[in-house]
Amino acid sequence: MAEATRVCIIGLGSMGMGTAKACLAAGLTTYGIDLRPEACAELEAAGGKAAADGRTFAGDLDAVIVLVINAKQAEEALFGAAGLAPALKKGTPVMMSSTISPEAARHLAARLDALGLTMLDAPVSGGPVKAGEGKLTVMAAGPDATFAKLEPVLAAVAENVYRIGSEIGKGAMVKIVHQLLAGVHIAAGAEAMAFAARAGIPLDIMYDVVTHAAGNSWMFENRMKRVVEGDFAARSSVDIFVKDLGLVTETANKLAFPLPLASIAYTMFANASNAGWGGLDDSAVIKIFNGVDLPGTKDEG
Amino acid sequence: MAEATRVCIIGLGSMGMGTAKACLAAGLTTYGIDLRPEACAELEAAGGKAAADGRTFAGDLDAVIVLVINAKQAEEALFGAAGLAPALKKGTPVMMSSTISPEAARHLAARLDALGLTMLDAPVSGGPVKAGEGKLTVMAAGPDATFAKLEPVLAAVAENVYRIGSEIGKGAMVKIVHQLLAGVHIAAGAEAMAFAARAGIPLDIMYDVVTHAAGNSWMFENRMKRVVEGDFAARSSVDIFVKDLGLVTETANKLAFPLPLASIAYTMFANASNAGWGGLDDSAVIKIFNGVDLPGTKDEG
Repeated sequence: MAEATRVCIIGLGSMGMGTAKACLAAGLTTYGIDLRPEACAELEAAGGKAAADGRTFAGDLDAVIVLVINAKQAEEALFGAAGLAPALKKGTPVMMSSTISPEAARHLAARLDALGLTMLDAPVSGGPVKAGEGKLTVMAAGPDATFAKLEPVLAAVAENVYRIGSEIGKGAMVKIVHQLLAGVHIAAGAEAMAFAARAGIPLDIMYDVVTHAAGNSWMFENRMKRVVEGDFAARSSVDIFVKDLGLVTETANKLAFPLPLASIAYTMFANASNAGWGGLDDSAVIKIFNGVDLPGTKDEG
Repeated sequence: MAEATRVCIIGLGSMGMGTAKACLAAGLTTYGIDLRPEACAELEAAGGKAAADGRTFAGDLDAVIVLVINAKQAEEALFGAAGLAPALKKGTPVMMSSTISPEAARHLAARLDALGLTMLDAPVSGGPVKAGEGKLTVMAAGPDATFAKLEPVLAAVAENVYRIGSEIGKGAMVKIVHQLLAGVHIAAGAEAMAFAARAGIPLDIMYDVVTHAAGNSWMFENRMKRVVEGDFAARSSVDIFVKDLGLVTETANKLAFPLPLASIAYTMFANASNAGWGGLDDSAVIKIFNGVDLPGTKDEG
């Protein structure tokens, strides 16, 4: 392409905003769509263009990245009353990066295909910080031609791109298996730290030992630091894992496959959410353990 | 001390043998005690001295490391018919590095104290390879004077020494919390990989994605590689985690503390052991998931 690729990110939450800024940093002409005026204002201040309704600029776009919260929002954003899909040029690639079910991925790909559009089933991992640095991990399935069209966008947003093949739904499935591990690891970290606190082990020492030994996990190291510091301000919330582990267990149910640990982890996050902690950081799942004194949490009630 | 420290390792299994060789490599005069003649022969070939009954050389020792399988074996080795403890010089430090309960650690320390001996409650983590390199992680509690006496030994065997304080039992407790995480992470890795296999995801790709993303754990990276390669030859066996997660859940029961994930992980390992896979690598816990084709396992029945 002679001029800079023009990409639009649908959904300017923490992941979408980070991704949009990474696109700007890579020199892409960057658009955003979000219902919240403050999110649009933030992207415009950073050098992008943004609106609640993207149909005015849809015809200019070379690529779309969808980073809304779930499949229902994705369907609405693409095919609803102000949906973007019918206004896109034929052949525009849509990178579907929300965490959704394999069924939903196939359904959305079919609807896009009916409009002459092509989809990459491309969930991401890495969190808002890596999104902002253009260093996400992308696990993607779709036609080779769609990968090729999205090359400048993938180069802008991802550090690692894993190609799972051409079958739509396989990208979503890999993300679901990944979220199983992520969710179980946070819940296991919380269980271990609550148990240590109950047994009178200083949590900073426990954290130090685990992070230098075979019991470590990426999530333990990242999230249990927040427990040690008593800081439950949400980077990614308890309710995100109620959603993601809900998706994990629903997907397993459809395959009649037992997930003994993920089912329990779902129960733990749902229990935390029902206690009123759904908007706190996902590490706050540790609060479901009663009779434990945690650092810095005495004032939260 | 004018001459090299003389240390004896009780229990020349994979961890004890590695530790003994690390002591030799560090220039320590190294003894070993094991009931199996082939283990004694291996240590002697490496330059140490070894016997089934260590009382002949007990009076020469400056330090003892206990690396037997459980508290019962530790008690027998120290206080049984051929027990080493009564034959040691007064003041000899005993580094208790088997994975045992806090109660057992306190009990053994009291019995040693009654003989004028001193104990460090010092479980280790890292596995046989790191043991052989003298790069274990030690999580230790005990009197400052005992730490000081064991300094040359700790320098020989450990990369990291975490001091949990002076209270005997706290080292054991930290190890138990660590094993909770290690066991849950292996079981979660197995659950995730079995689920991926059932959904038709190539396991080598799944492994590659997870090990480069936030779903990773030390155990996933180490153990699920064996699943991808279909290699279940035991480095550390399923039955070790039946024992360790059994200890985890018993310790929690004594504190009336719920461990939703560790209890399930225990069930998974016990289920694998009861199916006849107790002597396989702990990653073979994945075999409890039926209806899944795993790499290289078709011939094992």
